[in-house]
Amino acid sequence: MRIVSLAGGIGGARFLRGLRAAAPAADITVIGNTGDDITLFGLRVCPDLDTVMYTLGGGINEEQGWGRTAETFTVKDELAAYGMEPQWFGLGDRDFATHIIRTQMLAAGYPLSQVTEALCARWQPGVRLLPMSDDRTETHVVITDEGGRRAVHFQEWWVRLRASVPAEEIALVGAADAKPAPGVLDAIEAADFVVLPPSNPVVSIGTILQIPGIRAALESKTVVGVSPIIGGAPVRGMADACLTAIGRETTAQAVLDLYGAPLLDGWLVAEEDAATAHPGVTVEARPLLMSTPEATEALAAAALTLARTLADR
Amino acid sequence: MRIVSLAGGIGGARFLRGLRAAAPAADITVIGNTGDDITLFGLRVCPDLDTVMYTLGGGINEEQGWGRTAETFTVKDELAAYGMEPQWFGLGDRDFATHIIRTQMLAAGYPLSQVTEALCARWQPGVRLLPMSDDRTETHVVITDEGGRRAVHFQEWWVRLRASVPAEEIALVGAADAKPAPGVLDAIEAADFVVLPPSNPVVSIGTILQIPGIRAALESKTVVGVSPIIGGAPVRGMADACLTAIGRETTAQAVLDLYGAPLLDGWLVAEEDAATAHPGVTVEARPLLMSTPEATEALAAAALTLARTLADR
Repeated sequence: MRIVSLAGGIGGARFLRGLRAAAPAADITVIGNTGDDITLFGLRVCPDLDTVMYTLGGGINEEQGWGRTAETFTVKDELAAYGMEPQWFGLGDRDFATHIIRTQMLAAGYPLSQVTEALCARWQPGVRLLPMSDDRTETHVVITDEGGRRAVHFQEWWVRLRASVPAEEIALVGAADAKPAPGVLDAIEAADFVVLPPSNPVVSIGTILQIPGIRAALESKTVVGVSPIIGGAPVRGMADACLTAIGRETTAQAVLDLYGAPLLDGWLVAEEDAATAHPGVTVEARPLLMSTPEATEALAAAALTLARTLADR
Repeated sequence: MRIVSLAGGIGGARFLRGLRAAAPAADITVIGNTGDDITLFGLRVCPDLDTVMYTLGGGINEEQGWGRTAETFTVKDELAAYGMEPQWFGLGDRDFATHIIRTQMLAAGYPLSQVTEALCARWQPGVRLLPMSDDRTETHVVITDEGGRRAVHFQEWWVRLRASVPAEEIALVGAADAKPAPGVLDAIEAADFVVLPPSNPVVSIGTILQIPGIRAALESKTVVGVSPIIGGAPVRGMADACLTAIGRETTAQAVLDLYGAPLLDGWLVAEEDAATAHPGVTVEARPLLMSTPEATEALAAAALTLARTLADR
């Protein structure tokens, strides 16, 4: 069984752990969001790829969902002692090693997909992790604050401002010229079906869908998505702020309409959102909370079962 | 009083602390060796500049003489967990921050002299610390081992091999095309006199003297040196291996002859080396061991006193 999954950060990574448990023999390719990537202190940081890698590789800080377990912050504190900015992004010492290697390899000419493969050689995530693109794209957000109306990097809005200032516009800079990373379209082509975890529909899944060629490739496959919204609120994170920014409501229905058909074939929602519907999409109500590994595996299994049923039609 | 001092790493830095104590009102410019510099994991490391900066800035690990106090090695251990080489160079977490900033500034186009000034803004070493050159030079050592006859970076010979393999040749790659860093020749020109600490005469002081223009500028000044050799053995470090490599004996006399006149005007040796002599150089015997801050200050004061006497002639 060949499965492709798109993934953002924390929610996506947790879902993938359930997916791997639900289909241990499956060949799983994960297409990771790189729109959140940022260069800090001259080092290239790929938060979503690393969250997937650390989570599936057993190195994640389980409590916070991102960063390494047993992490320390000596380098960060020293950079701050030198007065270096920014100081609002929490890079830990263990994490720094990953970014140092990535930056060194990128500078030596390796594309991000090969760098990611090299890093995963240590972590053995049990899936094939591909960046959505080897080309540099970055999500920028237009805000208005004391600095006037301006575009800031997604991470500045998300981490520094904690999405407290309304996003007036969200744009993936570089998207038009970006190509899917090597292996991405082939993996989709070869997949028996595709699963969309409950990642952020705008700045995670939505970002991946903006890379030219990816959405079109997915539209010809059986795709089952898991709603990131339960009864009007994000399961976790600040997806509501992103949906508002693009003029959508924070509902399972709004995300279903956003993805729409022919992209989606199946859509899992929470019991209270059972009335959600869209022409051409099979909607099923299932427990969506990934509160335990068992619940997460059951959710992934439900997505797989629906996908198999729809693919066999 | 304007003093210029050349400096390598540990011994030079300790001497400079004594010099600063012996002449608290003096304007001291330190010309630091950058031949030991090395790029590790894509980061530019300047061991001698940092040892001077940390020592004079109160951040040095006093016991080992290099690196930061209360240091941890999380990043290094993580890089090793990824299988990254080399693993024989001891970069600590606090130290990494310095190299990350330096690398970022160099990549942004700042010359090393401005980078060093920016780093010193935090450490306030109480001297003006200049790299010998903004141009990249690196000391390489020709050895013969199981890998055959080959040139290795100085640090590989010094740190990995601990100078256990004979150096057949020591060369400062890039020296011919290097220019003194901005401020170096002006500082020498303006100096009342110049002091050479008991740094390694081959790979520290000798390296600085190879930058075109520096030796000539020094020859017109009053220069007093402190012997790094006492009774046939280096005070510390492995200067003997370096002197042997260039066909010199490990004696105070051999180093005096190496520097020679007209570079040197005065030379401080240990009591047992009182017979040391060279035409045109005033030799005095003094306690050379920098075993305490007080002894180090007394040694620096002796060098200053001799320099003043010679300059007044």
